[in-house]
Amino acid sequence: MPVRALWFDRGTLYLVDQRELPRRLRILHLRRSADVADAIRTMAVRGAPAIGVAAAYGMAIAASEARATPDAAARRLLSTRPTAYDLFVGVDHVRAAWKRGDDPVRAADEYRASIVDQCRAIGEAGARLFRGGPKVLTHCNAGALATVEWGTALAPLRVAHDRGSDLFVWVDETRPRLQGSRLTAWELGREKIRHAIIVDNAAGHFMRSGQVDRVIVGADRIARNGDTANKIGTYEKAVVAHENRIPFYVAAPWSTFDGTRPDGHAIPVEERAPSEVLGLGAERAAPSRSTARNPAFDVTPAKYVTGFITPDGVLAPSSVRTALAKRGRAR
Amino acid sequence: MPVRALWFDRGTLYLVDQRELPRRLRILHLRRSADVADAIRTMAVRGAPAIGVAAAYGMAIAASEARATPDAAARRLLSTRPTAYDLFVGVDHVRAAWKRGDDPVRAADEYRASIVDQCRAIGEAGARLFRGGPKVLTHCNAGALATVEWGTALAPLRVAHDRGSDLFVWVDETRPRLQGSRLTAWELGREKIRHAIIVDNAAGHFMRSGQVDRVIVGADRIARNGDTANKIGTYEKAVVAHENRIPFYVAAPWSTFDGTRPDGHAIPVEERAPSEVLGLGAERAAPSRSTARNPAFDVTPAKYVTGFITPDGVLAPSSVRTALAKRGRAR
Repeated sequence: MPVRALWFDRGTLYLVDQRELPRRLRILHLRRSADVADAIRTMAVRGAPAIGVAAAYGMAIAASEARATPDAAARRLLSTRPTAYDLFVGVDHVRAAWKRGDDPVRAADEYRASIVDQCRAIGEAGARLFRGGPKVLTHCNAGALATVEWGTALAPLRVAHDRGSDLFVWVDETRPRLQGSRLTAWELGREKIRHAIIVDNAAGHFMRSGQVDRVIVGADRIARNGDTANKIGTYEKAVVAHENRIPFYVAAPWSTFDGTRPDGHAIPVEERAPSEVLGLGAERAAPSRSTARNPAFDVTPAKYVTGFITPDGVLAPSSVRTALAKRGRAR
Repeated sequence: MPVRALWFDRGTLYLVDQRELPRRLRILHLRRSADVADAIRTMAVRGAPAIGVAAAYGMAIAASEARATPDAAARRLLSTRPTAYDLFVGVDHVRAAWKRGDDPVRAADEYRASIVDQCRAIGEAGARLFRGGPKVLTHCNAGALATVEWGTALAPLRVAHDRGSDLFVWVDETRPRLQGSRLTAWELGREKIRHAIIVDNAAGHFMRSGQVDRVIVGADRIARNGDTANKIGTYEKAVVAHENRIPFYVAAPWSTFDGTRPDGHAIPVEERAPSEVLGLGAERAAPSRSTARNPAFDVTPAKYVTGFITPDGVLAPSSVRTALAKRGRAR
C-alpha cells in the first residue's frame, strides 16, 4: 500500500499521526477546524505541502461550522506555523472559493489533487538525475508523509528506483525531531530502497570521502531569487555539497514558491521550544540549568542550489523568477 | 571545585564516568589494567588527552600485575580506540619507563602533569582571542573532562572568562553521544559561562546570521600538514565557518600531533555501533528494518583551520611541520 499522509471523507480529515511513527501507525480523525489547526501546530502533520493540504481541509471543515467566517477560519489556521508557504497557498485557495460561494470541500479536494499531481510530476521530472544507482543524501523527510503522496525529494528517487536504478540513500536523522530516522527511513524501508541512517554530523564526512553523488531535499518556502527555507541543517549540507562539487537539488511544487518574497532575508524562521533540544526522547539529556535555542528552519542561498526540481522540469535558480512570472505568481 | 576527569592514588585510578553525566557524578575505581582498557573502550573516559592519561595509568597499573609485560599491556590498551593519537603517546611514555626500569607510576604522573600543564598553557596562549565577550561555537566536549583539567578548546574560554570577558558559547549537542549537551554544557554551567545548546544542524544558521564570532574545537589527531581528526561533524562546522569568514581554531597539546602522519588521509577513523544512531536514549527511534553508519570522527583539511592553539602559542597550519621538527616529533 502506498503511503498517504491524509485523506478526507464526509466531513472528517483522516491524518497519519507523524509523531508516533515508526513506533505505530495511528490515524487521527479530525472533525473540527480547530483540531486541524492543533494537528498542524503540534506537528501531527508536517511537511510544507501536506500542511497546505491539511489546512485546506481545515478551511473546508470550518465552512460547515456555526459562526465561522472565511477570514477568521483562515487566521486560526495561518497562526499555526509561520514558515511553510504552502500553508498560505492552501488556505487562500479554499478561502477564495468559500467567499465566491463555491463548495469549499470541492476546492480543498482540487487543491489536494493538484499537490499530488505536482508531486507525481516532480518524480517524473527528476528521475533521470538518479539513474544508474547513485548514492544520494537527503535531509529531513520530503516523502509522501510530507506531501500527501509521492513526496518531493523522495518522488524522483521512487520513480528512478521503480525503473531499476539501484540507488542508495543516506538518511540524515534530522535532529531535533528525527524526521529522517523516523519518517524517511520508514518510507524507504516500505519501498525496499537501500538506505542507512546517519547523524546529521556525518553527512560532510561521507561527502568528502566520495560516498555521496547527489543531495536532494524538499523546501518550506522558496523566494523569487531561489533562496530556500528548509529544515534546520539544510544550509550546512548545501555549503558542504558545494565545497565538494556535489549537485544539490531542491524539489518542490509551485505552492512552495513565494513570489512575493524577493529573497530569503525576510522569510520568517520558526523557533520552537527548547525542550525539543534539551531532551532525548522522554529523558532530559542536558544539565538542568542549561537552556537551548531551537530554530526549526534555515535559509540556503540560491548560489548553493544546482537545480529546482519542479512539476514542470528542472530549473536553474536564475530561472525561478521568470517561471513564477509566467505563472502569474511573482507579484 | 574545578572539574577533574581522573586521578590516581595508591594503585587505583579514579575516573568520572562520563556516560552518566550530567544525570549523576559517579566515580569509577579501577584497580586492574583491563578495567582501564574497558573504561576507554566504552567511553567512560573520552577525549584524546584524557584517554592518553588514563592509558598511561593503565600501563602503570599493569606493571604491578602478575605476568604482565610492557608490550602486552600496551597492546591491550592500544586496541581500545584507534583515532586519538594521545593514546599512543601516553602508552609509549610509560612503556619506555617500564622497559628502562624506571617507576611506571612516576612516569604516568609525569605524563598527567605534562598534559595538565600544557592545557593550562593553551588557556593562556588562546585567551586573548576571546576577549571582549565574543559569541563562540564549540563542538563536542574539549573541556576538563576530555583532558583531566582545564580542557583544550574550553581552556582559553575559561581564562578569558576569568579575566572578565562576558563571552557566550553555542554548544553543539554533538550527536550521537551528546558530549556537547551533556558534558560541555555541564562544565560551562559550573563555571557560570553563558551558553545555549543547539542541535548540530543549527550551527550553520547561527554562523550565517552573524551570531558566531569564532569557532573553537579540540582534536583527536593532527597530521604534520595540519589536517585534523576530531569528533564527527567538525569538518562541516569548519567548512561553514570558512564560508562565512569566521575564524576556526583547533586547541591541542603536543600529544595530539602525530608527526608520523604527513596528512589526514591515513588517519584511522573509528566506526562505532549503529545502535548509537538508531536509538535515542534507551528507546529505538528508527524503524526496525533500517540500519545506520556511525563514523565517530571526521578529518578537517588544514585549509579550514585559522590557527592551532598550542601550549607554545598560536600556530598557522603551515607552521605545524616546523614546530614538530623542532620538538623532534616529525619523523
